[in-house]
Amino acid sequence: MDSEIIYLDHAAATPMDTRVITAMQPYFSDNFYNPSSPYAPAVKVRCDYEDTKHKIASLIGAKPGEIIMTAGATESINLAFSGIAGHVVVPNIEHHAVLNCAKLHNHTLVNADKRGFVSADSVKSAITAETQLVSVALANNELGTVQPIRDIAQVVKSERESRLVSGNKTPIYLHCDASQGVGQLDINVARLGIDMLTLNSGKIYGPKQVGLLWAASHVKLQPLIIGGGQERGLRSGTENVAGTVGFAKALELALEHRKFEADRLLELRDSLQKKLTDAFPSAIVSGHSKHRLAGHLHMSFPGLDGERLIFILENRGVMLATGSACAANKGTRSHVLTAIGLSDEQADGSIRITLGHLSTTENINKAGEIIIEELAKEYQRVNR
Amino acid sequence: MDSEIIYLDHAAATPMDTRVITAMQPYFSDNFYNPSSPYAPAVKVRCDYEDTKHKIASLIGAKPGEIIMTAGATESINLAFSGIAGHVVVPNIEHHAVLNCAKLHNHTLVNADKRGFVSADSVKSAITAETQLVSVALANNELGTVQPIRDIAQVVKSERESRLVSGNKTPIYLHCDASQGVGQLDINVARLGIDMLTLNSGKIYGPKQVGLLWAASHVKLQPLIIGGGQERGLRSGTENVAGTVGFAKALELALEHRKFEADRLLELRDSLQKKLTDAFPSAIVSGHSKHRLAGHLHMSFPGLDGERLIFILENRGVMLATGSACAANKGTRSHVLTAIGLSDEQADGSIRITLGHLSTTENINKAGEIIIEELAKEYQRVNR
Repeated sequence: MDSEIIYLDHAAATPMDTRVITAMQPYFSDNFYNPSSPYAPAVKVRCDYEDTKHKIASLIGAKPGEIIMTAGATESINLAFSGIAGHVVVPNIEHHAVLNCAKLHNHTLVNADKRGFVSADSVKSAITAETQLVSVALANNELGTVQPIRDIAQVVKSERESRLVSGNKTPIYLHCDASQGVGQLDINVARLGIDMLTLNSGKIYGPKQVGLLWAASHVKLQPLIIGGGQERGLRSGTENVAGTVGFAKALELALEHRKFEADRLLELRDSLQKKLTDAFPSAIVSGHSKHRLAGHLHMSFPGLDGERLIFILENRGVMLATGSACAANKGTRSHVLTAIGLSDEQADGSIRITLGHLSTTENINKAGEIIIEELAKEYQRVNR
Repeated sequence: MDSEIIYLDHAAATPMDTRVITAMQPYFSDNFYNPSSPYAPAVKVRCDYEDTKHKIASLIGAKPGEIIMTAGATESINLAFSGIAGHVVVPNIEHHAVLNCAKLHNHTLVNADKRGFVSADSVKSAITAETQLVSVALANNELGTVQPIRDIAQVVKSERESRLVSGNKTPIYLHCDASQGVGQLDINVARLGIDMLTLNSGKIYGPKQVGLLWAASHVKLQPLIIGGGQERGLRSGTENVAGTVGFAKALELALEHRKFEADRLLELRDSLQKKLTDAFPSAIVSGHSKHRLAGHLHMSFPGLDGERLIFILENRGVMLATGSACAANKGTRSHVLTAIGLSDEQADGSIRITLGHLSTTENINKAGEIIIEELAKEYQRVNR
């Protein structure tokens, strides 16, 4: 193996930023008190926790009382679906957490187009008089395609207004799973025009097992976990002070450097994409050509075996994914690639490259060389 | 304020052991990979995670496949109740998480006696032909009273056997919430004879927001959180590798030093108890005189105001609780103290002292002096 690891799977997991660890450290063994305890050092911890939630709220343009801390995006998504009794609308390329929650309800799957794009019109067509929830990810985790959340929010808003006129009292909410794209896209909830937002700390160089659901005050939720009544009764259990502080730091850093980082990754990604498509003209780049996360590059090499490529490239120190990490260990074909109409051969020959903090001009150039070299060998082997 | 803090609230929260932090550190920024990713460094993380669950299982005498990692005791308790459709039996002094879960079912509350003790006979009387779950904490978090779990397990076992004979196919499980008492009591699930066990990392010098539910393979559970299908489909979401490694280390340390620590705390607690009861003969020590956690000391000083005492003692650097931490911030009287028959005056004048790793002969002696001095002043003030 080449000695250096080149990590090209930032959409699956990210290393904790040292500044995040530093922010968390005081809460491990010093300010360890239970935020519900009555004495001053514990009250100070309670204040730090509430201040941190204020900071998070302010970073996303929300009110602090509307933030519910969770153990990650999956829990947040489940909570977003908790108050829904009626029909739900979700794209057919959503994460399994969203799809599996939708399946518990009367639901309509909206077809993404072949770029993985979910148009506001297609969402509009799926909404019925009984629809209570529309849930669309900000960006698809496999393809990087960025969805037109503001346009979809307009659709939901006009449905709400027409219900008001017609006397239909069924509420309708828009939930956005922004697990992917924070640090590259705008996630201000007011500007997006959404009712609920899921964020995941583990994807933005924060601690894992931390996430949040923001839910506007008019949204009705049912707790998944009951007990001591923490988080306004919506998520019981002693508060995760260290994790929340770490998450807030990670979010702050992600938003602070957003424009710079998105530009940087775009340049790296586009240069890598050009090299690979120049070298392999039959390769297919999936995802939207314009509305795509800067760090995402999903490519199919028809005739090659994606899983084999992973192991060959890993041997050269290059770490990347086939399809999504969640589906990767199950040996099944990605539902996203099937949904956008890739043939089995195209899907099976696909890899997902996702750039991030660990990506540099040097290591992306080197990765490009290694990938071209190894894929050329593979094509020689299979064409022999 | 005296400069040194004397922490007497170990039942509410514990500082992370530095050995725990050291064990977790490699998983923050180095071995940060998603355990579901296919390349070797991620597979190594998956192996570390599974090895850690094996280690935890072996520490409690269980099979690794029966361990479900959660975000803490509250989630574990909710999960323990997830598969139950019928009647449940719980003591009236359980934690709010258990009581609130029980309230969602047809349930019977078993009265603890005035020592907070729940006899196997009283549990037996409450079991009906429809009972599916009996849930009893290993030790009460306010009083420290240790419950006769093995005897209760015998009751559940003979109920199961008589159902087998009578053809009643309703399953009956025994769940034990061992959030309190790990590190002082035996928690081997086979020796206890239970079907489910809840453990909480944050109470044993491990990371907060980490817990587990052990459920024997015959127990049927329903996931609270669905998605990618992690933890045998019972708890979706990217695995908390760092947290699980930290928890395992904390559990290992707790069990390794269990006998030594229990003896040490017992000596400290008994000496403190003697000083306080000698100084204030009208004081009432609650909890079982024999079956009580070594570090627990619950005392009522009728005529005094417990909340006032907290603030007076805090001013002298002594941190302790009134009632349980969960109830503390709600200004309500502890349901436990009411249940064991303390009068309002006795309940309102009560404090909870819980010793642990931060307790030393020196600081417990000093705490005793400070408490006696301040309580004497308070008695003088109220009797003036």
